[in-house]
Amino acid sequence: MIITSEPVLRPGAEPSVRTLARGLSVLSVFDDGAPSMRAADVAARAGLNRAATARVLRTLVHLGYVRYHGEKFALTHQALELGHGYLSGSPLVLASRQSVEWLTDEFDEPCTVGVLAGGDVICIAATRVPGMIRAGLTVGVRIPAHASSMGKVLMAGLSESDFRSAMDASQFSRLTEQTIDSTERFRLEIEQVRRQGYAVNDSELQSGHRTVSVPVKDRAGAVVAAVGVNMLASPDTLHTATEAHLPLLRRAAERIAEGCAPE
Amino acid sequence: MIITSEPVLRPGAEPSVRTLARGLSVLSVFDDGAPSMRAADVAARAGLNRAATARVLRTLVHLGYVRYHGEKFALTHQALELGHGYLSGSPLVLASRQSVEWLTDEFDEPCTVGVLAGGDVICIAATRVPGMIRAGLTVGVRIPAHASSMGKVLMAGLSESDFRSAMDASQFSRLTEQTIDSTERFRLEIEQVRRQGYAVNDSELQSGHRTVSVPVKDRAGAVVAAVGVNMLASPDTLHTATEAHLPLLRRAAERIAEGCAPE
Repeated sequence: MIITSEPVLRPGAEPSVRTLARGLSVLSVFDDGAPSMRAADVAARAGLNRAATARVLRTLVHLGYVRYHGEKFALTHQALELGHGYLSGSPLVLASRQSVEWLTDEFDEPCTVGVLAGGDVICIAATRVPGMIRAGLTVGVRIPAHASSMGKVLMAGLSESDFRSAMDASQFSRLTEQTIDSTERFRLEIEQVRRQGYAVNDSELQSGHRTVSVPVKDRAGAVVAAVGVNMLASPDTLHTATEAHLPLLRRAAERIAEGCAPE
Repeated sequence: MIITSEPVLRPGAEPSVRTLARGLSVLSVFDDGAPSMRAADVAARAGLNRAATARVLRTLVHLGYVRYHGEKFALTHQALELGHGYLSGSPLVLASRQSVEWLTDEFDEPCTVGVLAGGDVICIAATRVPGMIRAGLTVGVRIPAHASSMGKVLMAGLSESDFRSAMDASQFSRLTEQTIDSTERFRLEIEQVRRQGYAVNDSELQSGHRTVSVPVKDRAGAVVAAVGVNMLASPDTLHTATEAHLPLLRRAAERIAEGCAPE
């Protein structure tokens, strides 16, 4: 979803260290928008030259993380393992998983927890509702922060300098008619989120979907994650979301924060 | 769960390529059993010397994939993204996800789809049942093939030479009183799985859990994945599993195979 650029390393970095950085860049450019790509597209997305990209891809194919089929490269299931240790090791993830399951039980709607990475939200816990065709998010996916309610509460929790960096990292791409696509309007939105303590995304990421999120704050009051619920964007669900869902979302956020406390 | 060894690269591999291989080894040693480790433990698990491990860890911390806290290293949420492109790009994963959701709806039990990687099964789709404390698997987790019903059907589908390699890769570690921990008994078990077309795991991975799995076969008849259901291991669920659940598991397997056809 995001076009990365050459990984930042100090100028004197050893070539071997640089190759590791490049290899990880290459792995991370495969996403929902580009699950399989020609080498030239991988190079463009990773911000690398073709020769370096070709060498990295060859190594990744050799090691089993990437497969080559029909002139295109794609990740293999082996790549999936690389980040799995985070899911099993982070108290934040474990507490989030329990809380979204509890919320889904209460709401009968898909629920998610996300953290901020640059201008994106990374989903670290998610539920789907069996039998419901409407898709929620899956763990590991990145979504643009400016177009999601999780992203808004996460950005609202940043210090002014971190907020500016996140704004710079955001591309404010327009995903639907409703997406907030200017920094000025987004600033106003964030001020409102700070005042009210929750964020709403009304068809801004995907038409017909409304999400409502609240911040998860650690003991020091820092926003460490966001927890949200995904609903259809019909007029009556706005009332449900802000009246009925908010208290339970806040309770879930407190539980997640408590579950994290031992870290 | 698995102790990896120095990645296999041709002897003349450039140092930079070798560092990429080592970096990926280091990322993949973090798992359920060791979510955070001291540098020496990372080195031991990755089968690398301490100097190489220290250099790789330093790079991974610098790039944001690993964090250092209280003398231990752990993955960050950034590592989670590395494999996500596989989840969004593979038709097998997409079809599997739909099918496990349908199965969970039918059974009201956690269901999973897995693929084989050496002596392990990697979970590529999984459901949890809201409100049920009993945990299912999560996507990306590796479990030992010899102690799971998915692993048994996957291994039963291998050619004799691939079967031998997978047997060699398996450590036949004893996880419960019921785990099959000898190659001889495992061979007999696989012969039975081949005859009956499904596999049962009765408290072999985790006490009190029974799972039943069937193979997903592509058009050429090759086993490409396994789909299974997770139940409590009470005497009456054995009947439910083999009588009531098997037909639906087989239907799910066919759906997954059809969903994959375009690949």
